[in-house]
Amino acid sequence: MKTIPKTLSGFMELYPQEQLVFDKIKNTIIDTYKSYGFYPLDTPIIEYSDVLLAKAGGETEKQIYRFNKGDNDLSLRFDLTVPLAKYVSMRSNELVFPFKRYQVGKVFRGERPQKGRFREFYQCDIDVIGENELSLKYDSEMINVIYDIFSKLDIGSFTIKINNRKILNGFFKYLNLDNKVTDILRIIDKTDKIGIDNVKEELSKLDISYDKINEIISFMNISGNNDEKLKILKEKYNDNELINTGINEIEEIINDLENRSIPTKNYKIDLSIARGLDYYTGVVYETVLDDYPNIGSVCSGGRYDNLAEFYTDKKLPGVGVSIGLTRLFSKLLEENLIKIDESSASDIIIVPLCDNYKYIYEINSMLKNKNISVSICYLDKGIKQKMKYANKMKNKYIILIGEDEVNKNTIILKNMIDGNQIEIEKNDLINIDKIIE
Amino acid sequence: MKTIPKTLSGFMELYPQEQLVFDKIKNTIIDTYKSYGFYPLDTPIIEYSDVLLAKAGGETEKQIYRFNKGDNDLSLRFDLTVPLAKYVSMRSNELVFPFKRYQVGKVFRGERPQKGRFREFYQCDIDVIGENELSLKYDSEMINVIYDIFSKLDIGSFTIKINNRKILNGFFKYLNLDNKVTDILRIIDKTDKIGIDNVKEELSKLDISYDKINEIISFMNISGNNDEKLKILKEKYNDNELINTGINEIEEIINDLENRSIPTKNYKIDLSIARGLDYYTGVVYETVLDDYPNIGSVCSGGRYDNLAEFYTDKKLPGVGVSIGLTRLFSKLLEENLIKIDESSASDIIIVPLCDNYKYIYEINSMLKNKNISVSICYLDKGIKQKMKYANKMKNKYIILIGEDEVNKNTIILKNMIDGNQIEIEKNDLINIDKIIE
Repeated sequence: MKTIPKTLSGFMELYPQEQLVFDKIKNTIIDTYKSYGFYPLDTPIIEYSDVLLAKAGGETEKQIYRFNKGDNDLSLRFDLTVPLAKYVSMRSNELVFPFKRYQVGKVFRGERPQKGRFREFYQCDIDVIGENELSLKYDSEMINVIYDIFSKLDIGSFTIKINNRKILNGFFKYLNLDNKVTDILRIIDKTDKIGIDNVKEELSKLDISYDKINEIISFMNISGNNDEKLKILKEKYNDNELINTGINEIEEIINDLENRSIPTKNYKIDLSIARGLDYYTGVVYETVLDDYPNIGSVCSGGRYDNLAEFYTDKKLPGVGVSIGLTRLFSKLLEENLIKIDESSASDIIIVPLCDNYKYIYEINSMLKNKNISVSICYLDKGIKQKMKYANKMKNKYIILIGEDEVNKNTIILKNMIDGNQIEIEKNDLINIDKIIE
Repeated sequence: MKTIPKTLSGFMELYPQEQLVFDKIKNTIIDTYKSYGFYPLDTPIIEYSDVLLAKAGGETEKQIYRFNKGDNDLSLRFDLTVPLAKYVSMRSNELVFPFKRYQVGKVFRGERPQKGRFREFYQCDIDVIGENELSLKYDSEMINVIYDIFSKLDIGSFTIKINNRKILNGFFKYLNLDNKVTDILRIIDKTDKIGIDNVKEELSKLDISYDKINEIISFMNISGNNDEKLKILKEKYNDNELINTGINEIEEIINDLENRSIPTKNYKIDLSIARGLDYYTGVVYETVLDDYPNIGSVCSGGRYDNLAEFYTDKKLPGVGVSIGLTRLFSKLLEENLIKIDESSASDIIIVPLCDNYKYIYEINSMLKNKNISVSICYLDKGIKQKMKYANKMKNKYIILIGEDEVNKNTIILKNMIDGNQIEIEKNDLINIDKIIE
């Protein structure tokens, strides 16, 4: 009686070719994070439930994977921010601040499974945590990181939408709606998803007057380029201190982005961006692929005044970015924005056509010394079967080595796309990287 | 009321500098796996309990993290081999065989916590799975991979001990003890840990005669170099078919290792290596650090006839290697075999001493284009505080940029170890990689 092998729904498990592309994207993200000098961090997947849930609200608690083992009440992490808060507050005397860390790992949420939703998914996070204070330069550095990643990923043009929670909070205070800010922001945050009309309707359910709803909507839709938007805000809300602080911060950041030579087409002020999470208190940003707006935000983040307030009295302000890689990858697949068929597990495959393995391994070593990854096909079968295997591996080039080649001190390099093959002297393999690139 | 932030015992959580070194080792392992053309694989951490436990025995079931979510009986994976068996048997019609995959990920075992034991730990696995048959060349490739990794890790000399379960099985059949092979092998496997005398005592508890125990012990300790051991085995057990098959396989593999130019000092036949796991059926190997024998095996693996027999009728023979990275790292730390203090999160730190960020970012970009990772210190503090921060980051070199440098189109490169500093023309930064290496 065999057990039926199956994988849970809502848990991504890719085919080998797909996984190659997934990992390539993941490595682009990680390499970019590293290029900015973020430390790696790798916290456990399992934590004490009371630690993970110190700050969580109702929805999170319902979704969490929670269980007992021995006497312990345990949970699987549902994001990488709470573990960071735990980590930093446990070690606030030993860490050097500002503390820059990246963490790329799986998190778990037992949501009802639906298309595009995952119960186990990768988050790719960076955060910078300061002690008491943290320069705004780190906010613009975050935007620089996002710009670098989405430029390198080469999946079309993108826009980083920037807002400031201080502007929003100041505005709602001015409307005397500051007791409803969280609820309002949660609704506004859904604008892209549900449309303006539904936003209006949901806002009216909060007992907000028709006039105020219209003022909210027109505020969110202040138009123009970045300078024009800032000018209108300044003129209209000149006497609102919180809004002014928010405007100054955005101006400082935009000035810094200009110094960084980030093209202005890649970022814009969008007053409707709120980010639902309660802990953001300053600049927030979302990233959209211009040609695929229905994918929604593919990378978001922001500034928070106090990361670890549930664990410590120390004031630890921070700023962070998060990419939901599993969802992003599934969307890119869906939209045919990534090509699966062109990837191969190694740069080259050697197909031995004779038994002189001493020679074959010598060739293999020469290639590896040039940082070329090599798979050798050890199939105990005829040439036809071996070529069939090589073909399925999707390599652009393969190397054939038979008795003739051994005797002549050569190899055959075959281009699997056009079928051409050339003979190369063993000693000329020193330049193989120029030939196969 | 604050929640006390804490991490579960038995769960590794490193300091930033430690994590840098851990990741460096992990990346060396992954890069080596990739250089052989193994596909990446990333199966879920959570699986159906009946799938994970299809083949497991008593100990595993007791240790597993198992819980219900909704109607599902779920478990966290306790190794990467069972998920591979699941994966391959689910996709045996689509995968191309031999299927080479690596997987590096966390697995979970709720053992009683003790020094050096972890409940969450990394396994770094490779396996090659064939359809019906699989060349012995893949067995020697595994040994080649191990050789490459431990050479690159540069943690001292090491020996890969090689045996063949066929030789062991043939020998125990010859002793009429084939009904007790699993128990005997489990005891023999502990030789390094508990010593010969305790092995003898435990064997006697299996109702094995004094004479046979002595023959077992002397068999395990056949001495000499590889050729001499094989010669003795051949002479003594000439008429035992299983032993002969085992000897031939080892001979073929050793011949292949010679063709691969792997130094003979790095591998040796050791007839006492058994690998407790039931599924090994052919060549098995363990790796020990010569100067730290009490660390035990740091990398092991072997050949199995049938990976997925609990899920499918297809015959899928395989050969694999596994490195328990979390345990290895903790042992290397314990033995002072890795240096934590010499690692830094970026190649260089820029410490701005003026506000001309346009210039600073230009320098930053020039460095990044040379593939140098750069952290910029944005502390809003005086030079003393900034230098203190830079010092704690453990970088060998930092770059200082003040008004003078901006005006002269230069930078100051400071060696943090000897304190020397030199001024470099901006245009000469094109050669910075040669200066700081």
